[in-house]
Amino acid sequence: MIEEVIAFRDERNWKQFHNPKDLALSLSLEASELLENFQWKTSEQAIKENMDNLKDELADVVIYALLLSDALDINMETAIKEKIRKNRSKYPVEKSFGISKKYTDL
Amino acid sequence: MIEEVIAFRDERNWKQFHNPKDLALSLSLEASELLENFQWKTSEQAIKENMDNLKDELADVVIYALLLSDALDINMETAIKEKIRKNRSKYPVEKSFGISKKYTDL
Amino acid sequence: MIEEVIAFRDERNWKQFHNPKDLALSLSLEASELLENFQWKTSEQAIKENMDNLKDELADVVIYALLLSDALDINMETAIKEKIRKNRSKYPVEKSFGISKKYTDL
Amino acid sequence: MIEEVIAFRDERNWKQFHNPKDLALSLSLEASELLENFQWKTSEQAIKENMDNLKDELADVVIYALLLSDALDINMETAIKEKIRKNRSKYPVEKSFGISKKYTDL
Repeated sequence: MIEEVIAFRDERNWKQFHNPKDLALSLSLEASELLENFQWKTSEQAIKENMDNLKDELADVVIYALLLSDALDINMETAIKEKIRKNRSKYPVEKSFGISKKYTDL
Repeated sequence: MIEEVIAFRDERNWKQFHNPKDLALSLSLEASELLENFQWKTSEQAIKENMDNLKDELADVVIYALLLSDALDINMETAIKEKIRKNRSKYPVEKSFGISKKYTDL
Repeated sequence: MIEEVIAFRDERNWKQFHNPKDLALSLSLEASELLENFQWKTSEQAIKENMDNLKDELADVVIYALLLSDALDINMETAIKEKIRKNRSKYPVEKSFGISKKYTDL
Repeated sequence: MIEEVIAFRDERNWKQFHNPKDLALSLSLEASELLENFQWKTSEQAIKENMDNLKDELADVVIYALLLSDALDINMETAIKEKIRKNRSKYPVEKSFGISKKYTDL
């Protein structure tokens, strides 16, 4: 997946613009565009009315996440595995089963 | 990758909380926490001072993106391929090579 | 209101850091911290559990908005009056009464 | 200022839609639209190219902040004074003069 994203960037010679601060800013903007689909709507309404846009915006979020991982030299798969490991100790099953509280309130 | 994320969720019986609107909202909050590492800083300073946190927050963004793709029944790989296809026609190489403008201004 | 905010900034000699890009980024981060009070919650739950924090975060949003208006030399009161005037023609009462749609869908 | 914003809302009978969660979400979306003016740009470029839009989006942020203060029954002026008072003790002049660090790192 990452290879296709990088190829798209490099065909356009865009790496020069992709400093990590602007990529993180762009990622945040794309996450907002995704969220905009739910403005004044329930989940059900958003899905019914905006499914195509939801798909596109979610893809944009992950595309920017991959571009940022490349700019920061982060291996995305390792980072996710490591973060899930941390989350396991923050949210042990016996404390957090069926509970949506933040770990600081468990 | 998605399987590990889903397993973490299901061990805690958290699917009941994961309505798409709150997931999209959470994704946007994580993208902001990632961006916070660059507040009042250049990219270089952020990388020097906050690399561990950058890795964790970027992982959180992708974890929420995967949870949302599951809740919306979106195949992430297909969605990304499709979005890159669209981006190719929005940003043809001959028009966008070495240019950071939005497609509406090209 | 703006005078007190500017006095706070100038006592600390912080104007040097307050470039508009970082101020806009900070404003967006504060808006996310405000929104975080509603994560996995209904409005009613958020109000019940987080009212003090809601007040503080909303104040932070407006404080940053005022700092940004100062950095950009924008008269906030004029800008709001002007924007409401534009919104009146985007959303005429007869078309938008009791309807939450975006003006492009009216 | 708040009175004009409330009048605009009530002429359109929109109070029914303005639950605090969706208002906080909308405020965050407007802050992102403001920030979008700085994407891939320096502050100087953004000011040169997007000044009109900056003014409009900043106004939208404050308009939503006022709508949310009304929905939560928060007196904006009191909230800001109170928050600046808290900030004074978090950031005493002698510790924070000319320093952009977060209070937790001072």
